[in-house]
Amino acid sequence: MLRTKVLSLVARSGPSRLMSTATKLTTVEVNDKTGIATLTMCRAPVNGLNLELLKDLKTSIDEIESNKSRGLILTSSNATIFSAGLDIMEMYNPEKERIRAFWTQLQEVWLSLYGSSVPTAAAINGHSPAGGCLLATSCEYRVMLPKFTIGLNETQLGIVAPKWFMSSFLSVLPQRQAERALNQGRMFSTEEALQIGLIDETATSKEEAVEKCAAFLGTFARVNPLARALTKQQFRAADLQQLENERKDDLEKFLFFINQPAVQKGLGIYLEGLKKKAKK
Amino acid sequence: MLRTKVLSLVARSGPSRLMSTATKLTTVEVNDKTGIATLTMCRAPVNGLNLELLKDLKTSIDEIESNKSRGLILTSSNATIFSAGLDIMEMYNPEKERIRAFWTQLQEVWLSLYGSSVPTAAAINGHSPAGGCLLATSCEYRVMLPKFTIGLNETQLGIVAPKWFMSSFLSVLPQRQAERALNQGRMFSTEEALQIGLIDETATSKEEAVEKCAAFLGTFARVNPLARALTKQQFRAADLQQLENERKDDLEKFLFFINQPAVQKGLGIYLEGLKKKAKK
Amino acid sequence: MLRTKVLSLVARSGPSRLMSTATKLTTVEVNDKTGIATLTMCRAPVNGLNLELLKDLKTSIDEIESNKSRGLILTSSNATIFSAGLDIMEMYNPEKERIRAFWTQLQEVWLSLYGSSVPTAAAINGHSPAGGCLLATSCEYRVMLPKFTIGLNETQLGIVAPKWFMSSFLSVLPQRQAERALNQGRMFSTEEALQIGLIDETATSKEEAVEKCAAFLGTFARVNPLARALTKQQFRAADLQQLENERKDDLEKFLFFINQPAVQKGLGIYLEGLKKKAKK
Repeated sequence: MLRTKVLSLVARSGPSRLMSTATKLTTVEVNDKTGIATLTMCRAPVNGLNLELLKDLKTSIDEIESNKSRGLILTSSNATIFSAGLDIMEMYNPEKERIRAFWTQLQEVWLSLYGSSVPTAAAINGHSPAGGCLLATSCEYRVMLPKFTIGLNETQLGIVAPKWFMSSFLSVLPQRQAERALNQGRMFSTEEALQIGLIDETATSKEEAVEKCAAFLGTFARVNPLARALTKQQFRAADLQQLENERKDDLEKFLFFINQPAVQKGLGIYLEGLKKKAKK
Repeated sequence: MLRTKVLSLVARSGPSRLMSTATKLTTVEVNDKTGIATLTMCRAPVNGLNLELLKDLKTSIDEIESNKSRGLILTSSNATIFSAGLDIMEMYNPEKERIRAFWTQLQEVWLSLYGSSVPTAAAINGHSPAGGCLLATSCEYRVMLPKFTIGLNETQLGIVAPKWFMSSFLSVLPQRQAERALNQGRMFSTEEALQIGLIDETATSKEEAVEKCAAFLGTFARVNPLARALTKQQFRAADLQQLENERKDDLEKFLFFINQPAVQKGLGIYLEGLKKKAKK
Repeated sequence: MLRTKVLSLVARSGPSRLMSTATKLTTVEVNDKTGIATLTMCRAPVNGLNLELLKDLKTSIDEIESNKSRGLILTSSNATIFSAGLDIMEMYNPEKERIRAFWTQLQEVWLSLYGSSVPTAAAINGHSPAGGCLLATSCEYRVMLPKFTIGLNETQLGIVAPKWFMSSFLSVLPQRQAERALNQGRMFSTEEALQIGLIDETATSKEEAVEKCAAFLGTFARVNPLARALTKQQFRAADLQQLENERKDDLEKFLFFINQPAVQKGLGIYLEGLKKKAKK
């Protein structure tokens, strides 16, 4: 099914080649004409960011970096969900070693995506809460399909988006709007997101979203790639350096918070709610 | 007179209780239904921020914090002035010990209001220059009545708004607008303030302003209070930490500046002007 | 020719006196009525910022500072170019000592212009790429004539705008727009610059642009000059301090980058292009 989709995309967008087949939770296809790589998250059912998906994301981003692609488009194979964010199963009754690896991997993904030397864009073809919004706002451009929602809704789940989530958010929104949305855990509709600047454009289909992302990445075609990469990384250096400097503290802070009985209880109630919803 | 007002408010807004009666320069009333506390400044004639009003403000904010209120609405008992800002009598020919206590108390009020774990809003029911604007911009939301003015007009008075005044201002306005307004000491009309984003809404009466503030605070009703508080404090941490780190320096800088003969002379001329104006 | 222009300006704007005649690449004239100094760059053919023009700029800014002028208006004697930015001849096959002096002088100019205690405005009467845009965005206000372009297009030339170029840019534009424009090396038309906030007003002639700049500077007329200067410098302190702390590193970084064979090759190709263009 995924392969069909990939192949059909290939057929429509011209010459492409599938780079990764070893990983199963992401695919990367490079358009040979444009040099732009499309990185697709495809972990059923909702692209929940668990340790394995994060590992695949990191591997794929590194691959795109090392292949000197002209751009990276992040999207989802799911028809209604870009990414549901951090997989709550990783945080509920967590296993000691695994949860450390999980958070560390999330840090890695952010550092490599937000700090990527390759220009990046997100084709947001579905809902994009929490970690999904983090991935989208770590890219340099966002095109979103209508009737979906996006936002850092961590406070709604009883958790705290760490500083680096805020960095990505603040790279897109003004301080006043960013703080209020974070405190409220607000989810924006596609239209609201466009108006406030959380996304840059809308598109009526995934195909159109990918094309608009490619058009944005195309604006760099005549720009010196090294100068552009150094410019971007210098612009984001303070944000990136902050997490680099505080990685251990950030991990311990997360572990301390997530292991609070009240937080665990909250996640349990949330999961019960999801199960009941699923049964209906 | 104040009591009548408080009681009439109570009558209109449902069950409330008056928390503080010991202090005279502020009152706090909590709506038992919503859990929202209204903190009213009531120092005649213009809510000038002197040492005593600042002490009462600090006590009231702490009280609201410790009572785990669901929100804080800051407003004024004066019909045309929210707060006239720092009481110039504290700065003109100051007494050595008192002016130190005065500035230290102002720092305390800012740290506890800007860093409050309780969500905050200002019902700006009158003019709000300088320190009045500082209090308003330290809240998370602002509703203002028409035909008043708001701004950090320190340069008009020959004084310099310290860095933390700038932090509150920058949490609301874009850098370009914030810097220009600070340099000009610009006072914005209600309409201008709305357009630039210095306030969030207008209201035609104090009652409506308080209701709109309560509606904003109500957006947090379904959000986890601990996660929300930690999110807000993390967002504001760098600003708060900056003053914490520089409290002594900030005090000495203020004392040095305020004791300059030219500054004292300027304040004297300003006070003469006020007296003449009052006689007319 | 320049002198005629200066004199005709004098005739039109009332009593002025020409302050500097020793330097040849800039002129300063002070309007005796308003106390506002107009600093005009006049290095043929395109106000390319070479070592000598930078030295004259620094001298003129210092002169205006020390004369306690009420304002500084930066403009160009060229009818179509404000400043073409850094003179590429300084960077192509550079002489060791001179290029160090060149970059150091550029740092000096920025520190004194961006940190100037005198309020500043730019009458942008021509194209303003790269270093030209740096000068314009280091001022507090910008009025631009139609049908010209402005922007930090360094990535188009294969070079990297250093952090302090970014500081000036970010003092004017929101983070999202600033980053994207920097990465793209985007040049904005006058209309686009107005819409995004990169300039504040447009004017149909240089005379009108200078008048509008003077009107902006006039908003400070009733503001205490010392309080205003300290407010501005405190607002810009972090940006200024960053370069002060990193001046040597910033110089070495520039030298390392500019001496890369690929960068030299790129500059060579660019210069060839200019020559061909000139022949046509």
